[in-house]
Amino acid sequence: MNDRFRALVLALCLALLPAWALAEDGHELWLRYRPLTGAAQARLLAEAREVVPLAAPSPTLQAAVQELRRGIAGLAGREPALTSRLRAGALVLVTRSQAPPGLVLPWSELGAEGYVLRRVHLRGQAVTVIAANGDLGLLYGSFAWLRAVQTGAHPAHVDTQSAPRIGLRLLNHWDNLDRHVERGYAGASLWDWWKLPDILDPRYVDYARANASLGLNGAVLNNVNAKADSLTAPFIAKAAALAAVFRPYGVRVYLSARFSAPVELGGLPTADPLDPAVRAWWQVKADEIYRAMPDFGGFLVKANSEGQPGPQDYGRSHADGANMLAQALAPHGGVVLWRAFVYAADASDRAGQAFAEFQPLDGRFAPNVIVQVKNGPIDFQPREPFHPLFGAMPRTPLALELQITKEYLGFSTHLVHLGPLFQEVLRADTGQGGTVARVVDGTLHGQRVTAIAGVANTGADRNWCGSHFDQANWYAFGRLAWDPDQDARTVARDWVAQTFTAQPAARDAIVQMMLASREAVVDYMTPLGLHHLMATGHHHGPGPWVDDLARADWNPTYFHRAGRDGIGFDRTATGSNAVAQYAAPVAQRWADPRTTPPELLLWFHHLPWDYGMPSGRTLWAELIARYDRGVATVEDMARRWQALKPDVDAERHADVAAHLAVQLREARWWRDACIAYFQSVSGLPLPAGTRPPGLDLAAYKALHFGFAPGR
Amino acid sequence: MNDRFRALVLALCLALLPAWALAEDGHELWLRYRPLTGAAQARLLAEAREVVPLAAPSPTLQAAVQELRRGIAGLAGREPALTSRLRAGALVLVTRSQAPPGLVLPWSELGAEGYVLRRVHLRGQAVTVIAANGDLGLLYGSFAWLRAVQTGAHPAHVDTQSAPRIGLRLLNHWDNLDRHVERGYAGASLWDWWKLPDILDPRYVDYARANASLGLNGAVLNNVNAKADSLTAPFIAKAAALAAVFRPYGVRVYLSARFSAPVELGGLPTADPLDPAVRAWWQVKADEIYRAMPDFGGFLVKANSEGQPGPQDYGRSHADGANMLAQALAPHGGVVLWRAFVYAADASDRAGQAFAEFQPLDGRFAPNVIVQVKNGPIDFQPREPFHPLFGAMPRTPLALELQITKEYLGFSTHLVHLGPLFQEVLRADTGQGGTVARVVDGTLHGQRVTAIAGVANTGADRNWCGSHFDQANWYAFGRLAWDPDQDARTVARDWVAQTFTAQPAARDAIVQMMLASREAVVDYMTPLGLHHLMATGHHHGPGPWVDDLARADWNPTYFHRAGRDGIGFDRTATGSNAVAQYAAPVAQRWADPRTTPPELLLWFHHLPWDYGMPSGRTLWAELIARYDRGVATVEDMARRWQALKPDVDAERHADVAAHLAVQLREARWWRDACIAYFQSVSGLPLPAGTRPPGLDLAAYKALHFGFAPGR
Repeated sequence: MNDRFRALVLALCLALLPAWALAEDGHELWLRYRPLTGAAQARLLAEAREVVPLAAPSPTLQAAVQELRRGIAGLAGREPALTSRLRAGALVLVTRSQAPPGLVLPWSELGAEGYVLRRVHLRGQAVTVIAANGDLGLLYGSFAWLRAVQTGAHPAHVDTQSAPRIGLRLLNHWDNLDRHVERGYAGASLWDWWKLPDILDPRYVDYARANASLGLNGAVLNNVNAKADSLTAPFIAKAAALAAVFRPYGVRVYLSARFSAPVELGGLPTADPLDPAVRAWWQVKADEIYRAMPDFGGFLVKANSEGQPGPQDYGRSHADGANMLAQALAPHGGVVLWRAFVYAADASDRAGQAFAEFQPLDGRFAPNVIVQVKNGPIDFQPREPFHPLFGAMPRTPLALELQITKEYLGFSTHLVHLGPLFQEVLRADTGQGGTVARVVDGTLHGQRVTAIAGVANTGADRNWCGSHFDQANWYAFGRLAWDPDQDARTVARDWVAQTFTAQPAARDAIVQMMLASREAVVDYMTPLGLHHLMATGHHHGPGPWVDDLARADWNPTYFHRAGRDGIGFDRTATGSNAVAQYAAPVAQRWADPRTTPPELLLWFHHLPWDYGMPSGRTLWAELIARYDRGVATVEDMARRWQALKPDVDAERHADVAAHLAVQLREARWWRDACIAYFQSVSGLPLPAGTRPPGLDLAAYKALHFGFAPGR
Repeated sequence: MNDRFRALVLALCLALLPAWALAEDGHELWLRYRPLTGAAQARLLAEAREVVPLAAPSPTLQAAVQELRRGIAGLAGREPALTSRLRAGALVLVTRSQAPPGLVLPWSELGAEGYVLRRVHLRGQAVTVIAANGDLGLLYGSFAWLRAVQTGAHPAHVDTQSAPRIGLRLLNHWDNLDRHVERGYAGASLWDWWKLPDILDPRYVDYARANASLGLNGAVLNNVNAKADSLTAPFIAKAAALAAVFRPYGVRVYLSARFSAPVELGGLPTADPLDPAVRAWWQVKADEIYRAMPDFGGFLVKANSEGQPGPQDYGRSHADGANMLAQALAPHGGVVLWRAFVYAADASDRAGQAFAEFQPLDGRFAPNVIVQVKNGPIDFQPREPFHPLFGAMPRTPLALELQITKEYLGFSTHLVHLGPLFQEVLRADTGQGGTVARVVDGTLHGQRVTAIAGVANTGADRNWCGSHFDQANWYAFGRLAWDPDQDARTVARDWVAQTFTAQPAARDAIVQMMLASREAVVDYMTPLGLHHLMATGHHHGPGPWVDDLARADWNPTYFHRAGRDGIGFDRTATGSNAVAQYAAPVAQRWADPRTTPPELLLWFHHLPWDYGMPSGRTLWAELIARYDRGVATVEDMARRWQALKPDVDAERHADVAAHLAVQLREARWWRDACIAYFQSVSGLPLPAGTRPPGLDLAAYKALHFGFAPGR
């Protein structure tokens, strides 16, 4: 059978296959490689007749070649041959050391992971090169080339140069060893710990492929609320089995380490980081881990936070604890990611505690310690101001921790695209001479070790993330981790083109929904800088009335402080003064309600209900208008999705529509319950024309539901 | 494009598709419909050119037609047209009421669910009919026809008549409302309770298809250790959403009911089954359920067992409790499945307790109560004698409860095919005039209500059951539930042909492995009638030394009673006399070690180590020989599987091989640990030539592992 006939047959058969043979269950993520249109297929085939690797053989090179062949086979209907001869129309994978003479490329700008995609003439033949200094760059370049083709680029005109701006681009899995995922809304953990290391789910490869396609290069496998067991020999072997699967894709394994492991596993009387026996225990443990995984990434540590053990149990500082672990890892090149998410029961304003504990330690951390800071000072709310530590620790590498899983944003049921949220924090001006992105990528303070982390939303559900659109949050995190200056809209557009449709009008309509969705969730849950209004424990649904929890700062009433006199948390000098933790230009702007953007107003200020908003409305009316706007946006999203029915396959269209119906119902619930509650404390009538809540406040308070996922 | 060309293209494209497009991940179960060979395709196409439904339109008919078209498209490479004209080569779905004159079939023998598959002449045309009295029979017949074709039958010679022998053929899911599955080894529950009823996973349809393909017609959705919440309005709505998906496939929904629900949900002071308010509460609840699911099947109840509430809490009998629920369900046609699995802490021999509590109640149950009895008197051990209640309650319908999930048989890691186990109990002679199968199918005592239940092994893992071969246990249960006289070998052969290969030599080699595997697990875990030797709680691995649990009859030492003097549980008149619960012919045979088969010897007898076995060996030597034989069989299975590499796709071959490697390691562990332990109590030397255990007994005792699944 000749090639042309094979191509024809493959193209035809994909069109003829019964629907069930290509279930649109989302499992393929953004690596679907569905056939292009006929003209685009011809263009692609002309530029990708053959794949020619000019690089030292390696599993990573093999992965790159395999992905290209798989992608081209799907997109063009013909699997390109693998050859060693350079002919016109070849796709050439080339490393600097194997580059033919005459191939002039900006090699030195590419670093260890960057790549160039370019059409060049090599030995007189017009070919496309995917060029890099090493095989991992070739893999990233291969995925980038496939993405370009999938998203509509003319394969003869692809001309891209890219290198990652942040060194460690990590997913953090809050996966327990029993396969339950804390704050997971996509089923059980991907890691089948019980069957590891013997039995390797093919999904592990697909997980690594998906990460590599975005440029993510590390995964912390287990929950930050860690069990010491994860550091025992059996679990090290299990982690090593995953590391072996991930290795060709450049994804290194990290582990969350329980600080008290020397006591629990080693039988030591203490985990004091200055105790020599403790230090020796960690050194031996680190050596053991590196014997199993020579490229082990390092430890992520949650210490002295929410009941986790830590150095403060022994009167030591976070720096003492982190540096001890860092010393054990340093000989092997590992890092410690030490989380700054801490809060103590006795502090006056939880928003200020991480800064108070960590900022004074600036300069006291070992060089291979990275302090990992959440995007905002509370906890992954729909909107927070950026964390005041960014910019305030110039002598310490700071990693940005984002939450991809939607703990507080409607689980995996609500369509909330997080690209704009991620972009907002990355672009926030710290007032210290640069944005958060410039802190995280190390350019502002000259850090060489740089990192960014996303709390994963993956699980064993067939679509990986619990819903189709939640895949886009994984995707957006990965793309922004590679290049934090990428525009969220561009990234969303690429994702839609790779998943739902590359047809421009439909693609852009979907992008529009996604971009609107983040402001919608802010509006229908926590508008105007409100935060932490959710119900207890499972964090699902509204609970602004909750005021009876053991700790003051677990209560929504602590955070909104609504009363007859007004609403909002005074974090200015007349209140907790947490605003003073920001650099002067920022602090000054946010200390005055008149210069605080409405989006953050009640985060920093307690204001009377009749406070005049820029819109001309009173604060009370504005609050209600924002809740209404949030619901209206979801209604609009549902309408837009209905209109997209002709453009999306039936299976995914129906699934998304079902999710949007739940979201709309729950957006109305949030709006109604919050308005009912705030009216009960403000005592004010609803503005004219406002639709009253559907039920009495008591009815909203009486709603209880067990068995919510992710606890 | 004409039909022949389409067929050619489809056949070619399936051959040409890259491997990843048809991932052999097991998700399709036995409904794979992969292309037949060319000659077989031609034969099939000749007999299935078109599908002609001659029956009243219904969702069930639609499901049958859809399955036929899907199956034929896959097998033959051409989707048959759907027409209303009878032409030669048509496949005709016909119900009695719509049958053309001249179609003479044994309609009255088919009942509501049976079918005939036959080649006939209709209006002068040679056609194949799938005939039944109703649409569900057509669906079952369609699956049977597809199975025949998949397993190598010549489509022109299919001639089958079949009707189920047991009325209610149920899966029992021990799935909790938080998606954890008790004794589940295949990931989280299939039921995503949180997202139900709004969001319907396409898997729900595939689950119903798979069950219907076997003839299973009911599913108890939630764990017998039930939460009352499953009877609240939100969960009834969730169950009803599943029921709506299952309905076209004839799968009715049942719920496990918590006996104390009137107290927990209704606020009543008691759940006493004779209390009028309690009875009224259940009636109202039943009415509510039937409004949501008019075809709701009924309640499964675990009462006064392992801490569950029940009628004995109020001094009432099991019959009092069951009859109260039965009365509430009777107006709607529902049944109560009341489990006989009970044991109290104070009884002398757990094996005798169910009989002691239930047999005296024979004749006191309402007509729509079925007492559900496990296959053996302990708890799903690798081998047990049949339960003495079978045959002993002639005035009570008895359901047979089998465990498909392998709680005590190596989880989903070990290849243990349960068809022979199921067959063994079904064919056991009760000594009351018939086998267990004749009790369960109602023929022995003239029962009209009949039922069989299998504790499901399904989960959200992609392959449904945790391993490929565990699918065969679901399959074997379903096929034997339809016809308990089916031969386990035939059923296994069908399964292999539908999943791995229909090529006879390879197929039979795989069947051989499967059939050998059950005796292997008996041998390497609990030979010669030993039982309950497993480790505590998770039931994984050997723990014959365990003797310190709170209840005597939780301890392996309670069950094996090994000491210097011998081994085994004396259940004869000199011991617990549980053997007397069997009918006289059986009791007499098993009361004497000389007439007790070696397979049950130590179940009934405590014998000295030097007891002479039929083999000529001492009991001690025989015990070791059996352990060795178990390990040798697994070694042989692994070897056979290696030889099958050319016959099985690479993905599944590697996965099974990995599982077998674990099984072999763990079989050796069982053998070594048990021999080490029994030697420590017997004080005897190992017979000459015996390989000593690899480790000291202390080392086996020291093995601990957390996070085992299914607890």
